[in-house]
Amino acid sequence: MEKTIAILGSTGSIGTQTLEVVRENKDIRVAGLSAGSNITLLEKQIREFHPSLAAVWDEEQAKILAGRVSDLEVKVVSGMDGLLELAQMEESQILVTAIVGMIGIRPTIAAIQAGKDIALANKETLVTAGHLIMPMAREKGVQILPVDSEHSAIFQAIHGEDKREIHKLLITASGGPFRGKKREDLEHVKVEDALKHPNWAMGQKITIDSATLVNKGLEVMEAKWLFDVDLDHIQVVVQPKSIIHSMVEFVDGAVMAQLGTPDMKLPIQYALYYPHRRYLPGERLDFKTLTEITFEEPDMETFLGLPMAMEASRRGGSMPTVFNAANERAVAKFLHGQIGFLDIYRSIREAMDRHQVIEHPGLEEILETEAKTYEWMESRWSV
Amino acid sequence: MEKTIAILGSTGSIGTQTLEVVRENKDIRVAGLSAGSNITLLEKQIREFHPSLAAVWDEEQAKILAGRVSDLEVKVVSGMDGLLELAQMEESQILVTAIVGMIGIRPTIAAIQAGKDIALANKETLVTAGHLIMPMAREKGVQILPVDSEHSAIFQAIHGEDKREIHKLLITASGGPFRGKKREDLEHVKVEDALKHPNWAMGQKITIDSATLVNKGLEVMEAKWLFDVDLDHIQVVVQPKSIIHSMVEFVDGAVMAQLGTPDMKLPIQYALYYPHRRYLPGERLDFKTLTEITFEEPDMETFLGLPMAMEASRRGGSMPTVFNAANERAVAKFLHGQIGFLDIYRSIREAMDRHQVIEHPGLEEILETEAKTYEWMESRWSV
Repeated sequence: MEKTIAILGSTGSIGTQTLEVVRENKDIRVAGLSAGSNITLLEKQIREFHPSLAAVWDEEQAKILAGRVSDLEVKVVSGMDGLLELAQMEESQILVTAIVGMIGIRPTIAAIQAGKDIALANKETLVTAGHLIMPMAREKGVQILPVDSEHSAIFQAIHGEDKREIHKLLITASGGPFRGKKREDLEHVKVEDALKHPNWAMGQKITIDSATLVNKGLEVMEAKWLFDVDLDHIQVVVQPKSIIHSMVEFVDGAVMAQLGTPDMKLPIQYALYYPHRRYLPGERLDFKTLTEITFEEPDMETFLGLPMAMEASRRGGSMPTVFNAANERAVAKFLHGQIGFLDIYRSIREAMDRHQVIEHPGLEEILETEAKTYEWMESRWSV
Repeated sequence: MEKTIAILGSTGSIGTQTLEVVRENKDIRVAGLSAGSNITLLEKQIREFHPSLAAVWDEEQAKILAGRVSDLEVKVVSGMDGLLELAQMEESQILVTAIVGMIGIRPTIAAIQAGKDIALANKETLVTAGHLIMPMAREKGVQILPVDSEHSAIFQAIHGEDKREIHKLLITASGGPFRGKKREDLEHVKVEDALKHPNWAMGQKITIDSATLVNKGLEVMEAKWLFDVDLDHIQVVVQPKSIIHSMVEFVDGAVMAQLGTPDMKLPIQYALYYPHRRYLPGERLDFKTLTEITFEEPDMETFLGLPMAMEASRRGGSMPTVFNAANERAVAKFLHGQIGFLDIYRSIREAMDRHQVIEHPGLEEILETEAKTYEWMESRWSV
């Protein structure tokens, strides 16, 4: 049976790898593609995959693209209306949310309302609005299929199992490029050092989030919603080589783990064909050359991204949105050389401390909280 | 829903641990118990678990037991007829085949014919008669539920998966007490050294089989039948601490593994309640103290039990029976101090070399092959 998908954010890291998976499988069709402003790559993708719809966030770029692809039968749309049209398009069964940022939430909700399954790569969706998204998905009978390697590993480990028999999630972490360093070592680290992830090739934002362990914190927050497990039953285990992608301990003491080489195409393909697996070209784990897998406890004293995320998640309401928004802006400023590495933690800490939590925030309140956090971040770091 | 089981071999290591699992679960009933000759323990078990049938292999002991339990409503039977009656008893849904040796095959077949699921701990069943047992189980619609920790790990890893999507089984091995030793080191090892298993507390025969890697060879042979995978897709990985109990690589490159502490009650309970899991008291893996899992290739030059088993399995027909029977007798002789450690390998090698393979042997031919191998073993090592 042919599958049809639409991709929100097809020119980014997860988007392009999703298209690599599509390229290897003959029975999957791309109905829609979208980009922020990279219309050069988007045009190439349109010419290769022939979607019927292409959404470009930037209105000007959308017009230019429309001119360039006028020889093809593709409709070009723009702005939030464009993303919403893409999310709900009739032909598509699965929306791959490979877009970064809160911008992904509205289209995700629209897709769920339209009965589309979600291949979820947008972290902000569950971190900030998990309390809205998960009940909505259940009500509409749509599947939330995780694309992140850790969540995919857990999703694979619990497939076929009774969720009530889960005792604990064990989310693995590489520990990032600064593993082993102490707080004083981090004060003056450079952007280029923070961008050296030991195992995975990813976008810049997520690579910095790996260095701060904010990324692991966001994953814990997402896991709570995805798998309906409270924070006392989620443990982060540092496993520096990223061979074990995550684990689940069941009530009988059995721990089921998914291992593999670091290749995002595996979780992407698993989400697209769930519960089926298909041949995937690429390197395999080789137990003739692999000699060890090592484990450490995460250093929560130094890498505050994780404990602060857990604190925000336990507090709940609008607090995770503040955590996420403050981090997002801080990372951008760090990447631009405007603030130091530890200022990322300071930003999050201060933003959380001064926030008045809104309990059970609706989408508008979440977006407002984000905007206010952004605003505060600007005044906080203005020179 | 209450489960009812019968145990073939309730006084051995797996049998007593099965009863420990029963003791912890209120909704499981023991309909039948059996022992070879240890009627002292069997009587205790009868008084605790109140089976309606007790089978004792030894006829004299059966009579004595019948006298001792005449105050209870339990029928005592003996010999092969007794085991067959136990295997087929009306009330029982699952037969736990915890008996050691070829003696387990007839009752297992009888139980399958009577529509009972099999919690399989008797290695000989599939090693020697997998080609008869597996089609029979399929035909009767009964489940073969592995109790061995390695096969249970694989069984857990493939639960919910499509078997056609399995690429390879990765059976882990501790490497036994002599891991790292070379052939010349093994010539004069003592029985007590061979009985020191690094991780598991097991019976004597299986502990020696661990030291020779014959046990791992038998597991490979069994896995071939249980999971319908050819030998080119089974790899043995030495993982000295026995934390990973086995793994499965799927076509997409994902490796699913089951990890745990070494406790046979986990696979026993999993088999009895499959596909459900229940709380099981006992130690848990602790990733705060576990620092590493190491891997090695098995030393096939030194520990010939594994390569010879694979050779016998590839040759097929009656050859696995010869491998198993020669090993069984050789281990008994080694335990009695009659032959050296390496004579176990010599016995298997010679027995296999002089055997004329019977293709697709029936049960009678398998038993005849065993008897002939025993006979030859006696003459080979007679003084």
